[in-house]
Amino acid sequence: MNMQELIKPLLQNNAAKIVMVVLDGIGGLPDASGKTELEAADTPNLDALARKSACGLHVPVAYGITPGSGPGHLGIFGYDPLECQIGRGILEALGLGLEVRKTDVAVRCNYATIKDGVIADRRAGRVPTEQSRKLTERLQQEIKKIDDVELIFAPGMEHRFAVLMRFPGDLKPDAAMLSDTDPQKEGKAPLPPSALSKNAERVSAIAEKLIKKAHEVLRNEEKANFILTRGFSNMPHIPSFREAFGLKALAIATYPMYRGLAKLVGMETPTLEGTVEDEISFLKQKYNDYDFFFMHVKKVDSYGEDGNFEGKAARISEFDKLLPQVLELNPDVLIITGDHSTPALMKGHSWHPVPVLLKSPYVLGNICSAFSERECVKGELGILPALNIMPLALAHALRLKKFGA
Amino acid sequence: MNMQELIKPLLQNNAAKIVMVVLDGIGGLPDASGKTELEAADTPNLDALARKSACGLHVPVAYGITPGSGPGHLGIFGYDPLECQIGRGILEALGLGLEVRKTDVAVRCNYATIKDGVIADRRAGRVPTEQSRKLTERLQQEIKKIDDVELIFAPGMEHRFAVLMRFPGDLKPDAAMLSDTDPQKEGKAPLPPSALSKNAERVSAIAEKLIKKAHEVLRNEEKANFILTRGFSNMPHIPSFREAFGLKALAIATYPMYRGLAKLVGMETPTLEGTVEDEISFLKQKYNDYDFFFMHVKKVDSYGEDGNFEGKAARISEFDKLLPQVLELNPDVLIITGDHSTPALMKGHSWHPVPVLLKSPYVLGNICSAFSERECVKGELGILPALNIMPLALAHALRLKKFGA
Repeated sequence: MNMQELIKPLLQNNAAKIVMVVLDGIGGLPDASGKTELEAADTPNLDALARKSACGLHVPVAYGITPGSGPGHLGIFGYDPLECQIGRGILEALGLGLEVRKTDVAVRCNYATIKDGVIADRRAGRVPTEQSRKLTERLQQEIKKIDDVELIFAPGMEHRFAVLMRFPGDLKPDAAMLSDTDPQKEGKAPLPPSALSKNAERVSAIAEKLIKKAHEVLRNEEKANFILTRGFSNMPHIPSFREAFGLKALAIATYPMYRGLAKLVGMETPTLEGTVEDEISFLKQKYNDYDFFFMHVKKVDSYGEDGNFEGKAARISEFDKLLPQVLELNPDVLIITGDHSTPALMKGHSWHPVPVLLKSPYVLGNICSAFSERECVKGELGILPALNIMPLALAHALRLKKFGA
Repeated sequence: MNMQELIKPLLQNNAAKIVMVVLDGIGGLPDASGKTELEAADTPNLDALARKSACGLHVPVAYGITPGSGPGHLGIFGYDPLECQIGRGILEALGLGLEVRKTDVAVRCNYATIKDGVIADRRAGRVPTEQSRKLTERLQQEIKKIDDVELIFAPGMEHRFAVLMRFPGDLKPDAAMLSDTDPQKEGKAPLPPSALSKNAERVSAIAEKLIKKAHEVLRNEEKANFILTRGFSNMPHIPSFREAFGLKALAIATYPMYRGLAKLVGMETPTLEGTVEDEISFLKQKYNDYDFFFMHVKKVDSYGEDGNFEGKAARISEFDKLLPQVLELNPDVLIITGDHSTPALMKGHSWHPVPVLLKSPYVLGNICSAFSERECVKGELGILPALNIMPLALAHALRLKKFGA
């Protein structure tokens, strides 16, 4: 029995509020000074909170597995990242800010150079982003519809962009099962977008026409005269936050990718711009209208990805200064964690367990002296799979009945 | 492969004795003083024992899940509480002290008021226990048998009682799959006890006759003139302690419910009354005759359920004074733990991991300074699923051979 099946019959509703703050990529590693980013940052408020909270470290997917943003968030949202895999096309579309519907098929695209029927450059000489954006706008202008399917283009970085095929009516669950057309090697012909299931034939027909039409539009470009497609996918069927956990949930996030991930699990995802302080203002403003709040703080991760140790620590210190504003709301359950670790040392996501802090009236507390990797190791939550955070949140919110008599 | 399948081929017999003391609901939370019940109690003996034992915290069912007594005990007995679910009728019958056999179907009943074919009161005005007891005795008197099925009635509190239908010969595994007859709302007609599987038809026929006969017996009662039935169930098929672990096991428990749970897993369960000291005397008396002893201390939980922090702490202190008598026996493996937490703060069972202490010649020790939640967090057993306690007990008793060459 999986976790969601176990807890579903135990759910009960009440007025308790749960706030989950995700400091993206919060987990780190020591630099030459021997301190991690969390230890180097100035965090009197987080440390005081850790002293009266239940702390631990969560393993996002599995030991040794470095999660992308998709699996990282799914885990802390209470969805098994190994069961709920999200197609690359969908993730790309969400990341580029497209609103993806149930009947959409999303695909990642590259501009490429084709010559005499073979791919001469899979990235069209890494088209500069400005030029790529213009090309994508032109494609959108020229290809609005193929048969009864609406096409939506989203420009990306350099040679990359995404396309949504918006089908009218319903799509079968495996309709997006198409093979990639990128031959993965220069000097080879592009592959046809073959249907990998009977249900996918309707989609492959549109994909073939799209590739052909795009080539017609681009044929006079020197380099970017062709498109290669990968990761055809549609929205996975995932029970909503309300179905799975009985919670009316709001996502507070300024980056489209994270709103997209929240939308996947049925949170409301209003468009929002601004700073972390603006996010907290929005949290206050909407506090009466929801049961669960996911607040995403992106910049911690960005500096980690750049290998900027001081920058990452400074973003943590900044959040610490704002934390009292969140505490003023006095949520029944407050969780502060990350979706994965991003040690500046590694300039990227890593597999390291992620500090997690849970504040409620029902914790032991008085175990950890600060919010850091080394202190969380000692904590009462231990080292636990990310998937267990949501049932703990519900339990501490007194939203789960007893199991068995 | 589940745990029992893994260890079965590794079992070896020897003369080692394992004593498992279950302090029901032992886990707690801090009160205003910052101390938990275990920390507030006077426990020099438990603390000294913790210093030379392996300590940790066990998760009875899963993170965030509050177990009832059934799943709580099954886990520490080494049975997966998610696989071995015990029907409500069986638990009720066990709790009321009935001896349940393999061919019995148990059902929870309510006295109810029926008027013009609809249920006017699902609890018959909460019949006082004394009156309800008399009614149940009358039902037993008047309905001893239906066709070839013996009926056994057990009076309960207020409007509640239990009935066992004792079928001659064998019952198919899903024979007890009947729908509830309680419509769950006043003003509705009672539902028929429908068979939910082909095999259940034999049982539903008896259930229908039982309900009709009971109505005939009760028809002149002002309020309690009808019975509603819920939770039809029979004994789950669970391998016995001897089959699963190669142990001849004795349950030492004064409450019927816990003897019933021990009986489910094939322990011997002599009727016993008295204090914890009486339980320990019984343990001494039977010490040569068994391999495994489950000793249940109920009162710790009862005070927790009442929200009586000092009372719970006092029961723990009392047990501490008696502990040397258990230690005198010098069992090869001694485990002290609970089936779940019952923090006085919460006045009920909770999901919090439960302190566990394992004493044997093969532990590290010298890690935890006391037997408490916060000290056990540091312990060498870590935070572990309850299901792992039995294989650890067997290993420390040198009753498990090497796995693989």
